[in-house]
Amino acid sequence: MILVLTGGTGGAKLVEGLAALIDPAELTIVCNTGDDCVFHGLYISPDIDTITYTLAGLSDTEKGWGLKGDTFAALEQLRRLGNDAWFNLGDKDLATHIARTRLRNEGRKLSEITDQLRRALGVSATILPMSDDRIETRVETPQGEISFQEFFVKERSTPEVFAVHLAGAEKSRPAPGVLDAIREADAIVICPSNPVTSIGPILAVPAIRDAIAGRRVRCVAVSPLIGGRAVKGPADRMLARMAGGTTPAHVASCYEGLIDALVVDEADPAGPMAVRRVVTHTLMTDLAASRRLAETALRGAA
Amino acid sequence: MILVLTGGTGGAKLVEGLAALIDPAELTIVCNTGDDCVFHGLYISPDIDTITYTLAGLSDTEKGWGLKGDTFAALEQLRRLGNDAWFNLGDKDLATHIARTRLRNEGRKLSEITDQLRRALGVSATILPMSDDRIETRVETPQGEISFQEFFVKERSTPEVFAVHLAGAEKSRPAPGVLDAIREADAIVICPSNPVTSIGPILAVPAIRDAIAGRRVRCVAVSPLIGGRAVKGPADRMLARMAGGTTPAHVASCYEGLIDALVVDEADPAGPMAVRRVVTHTLMTDLAASRRLAETALRGAA
Repeated sequence: MILVLTGGTGGAKLVEGLAALIDPAELTIVCNTGDDCVFHGLYISPDIDTITYTLAGLSDTEKGWGLKGDTFAALEQLRRLGNDAWFNLGDKDLATHIARTRLRNEGRKLSEITDQLRRALGVSATILPMSDDRIETRVETPQGEISFQEFFVKERSTPEVFAVHLAGAEKSRPAPGVLDAIREADAIVICPSNPVTSIGPILAVPAIRDAIAGRRVRCVAVSPLIGGRAVKGPADRMLARMAGGTTPAHVASCYEGLIDALVVDEADPAGPMAVRRVVTHTLMTDLAASRRLAETALRGAA
Repeated sequence: MILVLTGGTGGAKLVEGLAALIDPAELTIVCNTGDDCVFHGLYISPDIDTITYTLAGLSDTEKGWGLKGDTFAALEQLRRLGNDAWFNLGDKDLATHIARTRLRNEGRKLSEITDQLRRALGVSATILPMSDDRIETRVETPQGEISFQEFFVKERSTPEVFAVHLAGAEKSRPAPGVLDAIREADAIVICPSNPVTSIGPILAVPAIRDAIAGRRVRCVAVSPLIGGRAVKGPADRMLARMAGGTTPAHVASCYEGLIDALVVDEADPAGPMAVRRVVTHTLMTDLAASRRLAETALRGAA
């Protein structure tokens, strides 16, 4: 069994590659929930949804979020009714949030709900939230502290980021199944998601960090940067500020003591690094590229 | 100002006629909330919505419910996720229920929410729920007691109805504005909605019944039956069982002490009746017909 830590978009591509390479039932995917948010009273788990939709073959790979072929009639009407509608929610996508919110209000845990929804969509991989406790990624900007979605979607990642806070992380516990999966995994893969705001929250759950630090199998991370630049999103700017740079060594420093190898792109500079370097072509332009990168990552963890 | 008591579909047509006849700002419409229901965790007020959509020019007059041109992507996906989806909810319609549910969970009253939503849709008539208290229309059938929507939508009104219970009515209070409107009205019109399950719940709010019984202006009801038959729905079967028949006198008996005149169709039998009979053509096939019937009703109340 392969244990995977992931955020949304970038991570989803590698997850798709892994699911094409090995039996998806052999994958246990731990998702970031620090970006979870409530809009219109509906509880939304963007990274869990992206991973679930991707593995169900339903995701809109062109847009990088949501369901392919989705429509936006409800959102348009919510706007007409005077609601803030900067967070995109398709009509089919809304069904997920409506179902999740109802189940939460009935007292079900996010982990149970996640499992129920992925099964309903025919996904055989195990998908786990990092925690059933609420951990909120807060971004400190010149305009003040805002939620991750306000930063990422409403402000289009443009504000300068002074710091990222993970409210609630310190006292959080891993969701049921996460620690067992870390113990039972044959290898651990950290996806090319943002090390600060996507993987950071997962590793901020103390027992998850401890379990990975104490692993008896190899853990390999795939860098989200190519030539020091993020493919999408603000990872490069965040690393420059918070890790002091964007070289592979800076990426590796985000995972200090937690990884045995880092997969980096051919465009990235050589130089000393605390862990083994695996150099390959990391841009995932199609499923074949994702599958190749997944294969390289698994070899790096062997 | 004209005070109107109404249910959904049939009532909406007369409301539309009234709004075409006089300045809609001069209308105060008290809606049945006994059919309100919760589906997928969303709070739905079918009659309030039908009246609001109708006055906003947005209702699907062919189907008799929902918004014209609405789509059903979210409902289809909810079904795919394993949810019961026999209650039709369009995507645009969902926006109403999502907004209402959020506002309710924030502690707002149904009356405040109803007012906010009708204003957002540009409706100048005042729309009031009969009560902010929960009153639930329960239908006693051979299969046991079920909610009105289970009876009306899921079972397509086919089960025999032994009795109708209005749970919570006894201790309910009128929504803010209802009693003032009854006192200040120049006339009261009861729409051709089901006397048992649409108008009955409104009149089951004790203070509303008392205020209308003590009215100083005329109250006219429009019969929902034509030749003793309901245009749509189970009103005829219900009246046969619960009022002992379907003649104008039986309809009038549902409103004993509460009306001064009953508008009936030319197809209905003559015969003794406790209130003044106004005979006209009552089938509302188009807006012109609705307007004519509204005019007749207002003359009946003059």
